Amino acid sequence: MLIVQKYGGTSVANAERIKAVAERVVKSAREGNRVVVVVSAMSGETDKLIGLAHQVSLNPNEREMDLLLSSGERITSALTAMAIEELGHKAMAFTGRQMGIITDKVHMRAKIEKIATERAKKALSENYILVIAGFQGITEDEDVTTLGRGGSDLSAVAIASALKADICEIYTDVDGVYTTDPNIVPDARKLEKISFEEMLEFASLGAKVLQTRSVEFAMNYEVPVVVRSSFNDNRGTLVTKEDEDMEKVVVSGVAYDKNQAKITVTGVPDKPGIAATIFKKIADAGIVVDMIVQNVSSDGKDADISFTLPRTDSKRALKLTGEIAKELGARVMTLREDLSKISIVGVGMRTHSGVAAQMFETLAKHGINIIMISTSEIKVSCIIDLKYTELAVRVLHDAFGLAESR
Amino acid sequence: MLIVQKYGGTSVANAERIKAVAERVVKSAREGNRVVVVVSAMSGETDKLIGLAHQVSLNPNEREMDLLLSSGERITSALTAMAIEELGHKAMAFTGRQMGIITDKVHMRAKIEKIATERAKKALSENYILVIAGFQGITEDEDVTTLGRGGSDLSAVAIASALKADICEIYTDVDGVYTTDPNIVPDARKLEKISFEEMLEFASLGAKVLQTRSVEFAMNYEVPVVVRSSFNDNRGTLVTKEDEDMEKVVVSGVAYDKNQAKITVTGVPDKPGIAATIFKKIADAGIVVDMIVQNVSSDGKDADISFTLPRTDSKRALKLTGEIAKELGARVMTLREDLSKISIVGVGMRTHSGVAAQMFETLAKHGINIIMISTSEIKVSCIIDLKYTELAVRVLHDAFGLAESR
Repeated sequence: MLIVQKYGGTSVANAERIKAVAERVVKSAREGNRVVVVVSAMSGETDKLIGLAHQVSLNPNEREMDLLLSSGERITSALTAMAIEELGHKAMAFTGRQMGIITDKVHMRAKIEKIATERAKKALSENYILVIAGFQGITEDEDVTTLGRGGSDLSAVAIASALKADICEIYTDVDGVYTTDPNIVPDARKLEKISFEEMLEFASLGAKVLQTRSVEFAMNYEVPVVVRSSFNDNRGTLVTKEDEDMEKVVVSGVAYDKNQAKITVTGVPDKPGIAATIFKKIADAGIVVDMIVQNVSSDGKDADISFTLPRTDSKRALKLTGEIAKELGARVMTLREDLSKISIVGVGMRTHSGVAAQMFETLAKHGINIIMISTSEIKVSCIIDLKYTELAVRVLHDAFGLAESR
Repeated sequence: MLIVQKYGGTSVANAERIKAVAERVVKSAREGNRVVVVVSAMSGETDKLIGLAHQVSLNPNEREMDLLLSSGERITSALTAMAIEELGHKAMAFTGRQMGIITDKVHMRAKIEKIATERAKKALSENYILVIAGFQGITEDEDVTTLGRGGSDLSAVAIASALKADICEIYTDVDGVYTTDPNIVPDARKLEKISFEEMLEFASLGAKVLQTRSVEFAMNYEVPVVVRSSFNDNRGTLVTKEDEDMEKVVVSGVAYDKNQAKITVTGVPDKPGIAATIFKKIADAGIVVDMIVQNVSSDGKDADISFTLPRTDSKRALKLTGEIAKELGARVMTLREDLSKISIVGVGMRTHSGVAAQMFETLAKHGINIIMISTSEIKVSCIIDLKYTELAVRVLHDAFGLAESR
């Protein structure tokens, strides 16, 4: 098998852990696999570099920021290759450039355009274990780019796709993907497998196991991904194409996001284009709005608009919205910051009805008021009072029987 | 003017110092100069990376070591470029590759083969200050190489030569080149200028102001170099082609090297090729032998061979020499480790006689015994007892009138 193994920052946090990673890699190679390793920066390293940048500049240039930040992964790739060689196996560290990762020119959040695999394939054929600095590429103009936070996951999946690897293993500090946060529900169950679509919902809901773009990439190019721990030999969770087994399961998991706020503008004159005006201005500021609800008042003259967004952006968004509300002659503007979002996810929802109703009933039964609702084909999300987050997670996990073994 | 400015590790040791460097650079640019900056790793950074490498591997691969170590200078170049932009001047960080520095494939001590300056020239013409990561280049095969300890000096001089810069300023933590170590002789005088040849002798004698290869390069390509401090505005020392002024001065300075040892092999059969046998084996072990003295015994049968070498290599050399001595049937082998080398340097020696004699007399007058002597056109070196080092430096500095202003 050709295996891509990606190790995150905590897995390579110091020399001891890098040596443990090297042992795992060499073990896999000695079992007859060809192995390509993708590494993140040692944990804390990227933040240290960002800290230095902000000490010398209030607004560091993004091109220089990419050159700076890409160093962390280069360091880990060199150290990991050395540690593998120390165990007696040939290894070669590759920068993003040496791996042939060509990106667009959007610094700090570059998109991979192509991967030129000639050099990697040659080294693999010569029995080298490749250790690739994740998170980075270069533009056609030879400038260094980075792929955004969590970009090493994307590097790994894209490299797995380019090399037509049999599997992409993402090593992290958790055992896999759980039906919900085991810190809240002690009998949360580790999933053996999960579909790309479900994983994408979990990722975008803030379950930090896999970076969203890497899941999208894996889905689009059908790269089977395994999420597992670098600290034990547990099997992990396979993220793969939807199959019949998965469809039998109505709900795969319960996710939550405590970083939610809601802004409401009341008494907006009901004219076409008002929502567009507000949300364009907010989007231009780089703030991602999630749910939007618009109601026309009983007399048909005014409208109320409510929307949710990350609480960490709410102050900025409130200021922008205030400016627009004033121009539009809106009457009242309110901000609620004590909110969270609870979601149930499952591909089985496509073929099973009544799932949303069951969620609403369960919450109601436990006195949890629903403030906003949004649904997709495989997900139902409710905005609730922040203080009920854990209760909601527990009762929904229980109501959909997620603790029971399948 | 086109100026290349090189800043060493202590000059960029932290964010505050990087900001101070940025101010100096921008000041020079605002005075109408085009400026190219070459930076070292922040002090301590390279040693930290070497430490990590030795934690994961007893004998780290040199290719990976180069990838690892080159990161330090990349970090500084990015931070320095950001700090310059913060002051309102356009700046662009360049890696060794982006600067077009192509080297041979000898990792950790690569030689620069050519510098492709197209991109640098274009950026300079667009009014960018370039900030180049020193110490590094790439091979034709796209592997990262480093130029050996102090290699950033070499980067700076080579870039100055390639860009046909008017001057190469080497910023360090001392004010310039002194007639001797001011820690030993408080009235040591800073030299206004010094010839390349003299600087080369000083550098190879262990005065750590400039790396030897960078002086050779500057001499071969006639790049005028100024050594000055990044912590004040003092003028520094110009290292340049020999001129008539310089020839009038017999001795420019007194250098010393306390890291000296001597190995003597007594009773070696006097056959041709014996010295070759010994020194080939020692050279193969990477040990650099300095002075060699061979005497044939009074009866003409045996020879004694003495040689000096860095004390830090003496144990290893003694072991090797012992093996050879045994094979050759030599009688006695001795090691002296309590030695130092005192040298006087000056291009004026070429045209002035009696300089060596004056040195020997001065040492004798103060009861300092000379153990070995070696001379070149512009240098006389004596091996003496380590404990007399400071005394010898002081009396020679005095005897040649070095404290007086020229």
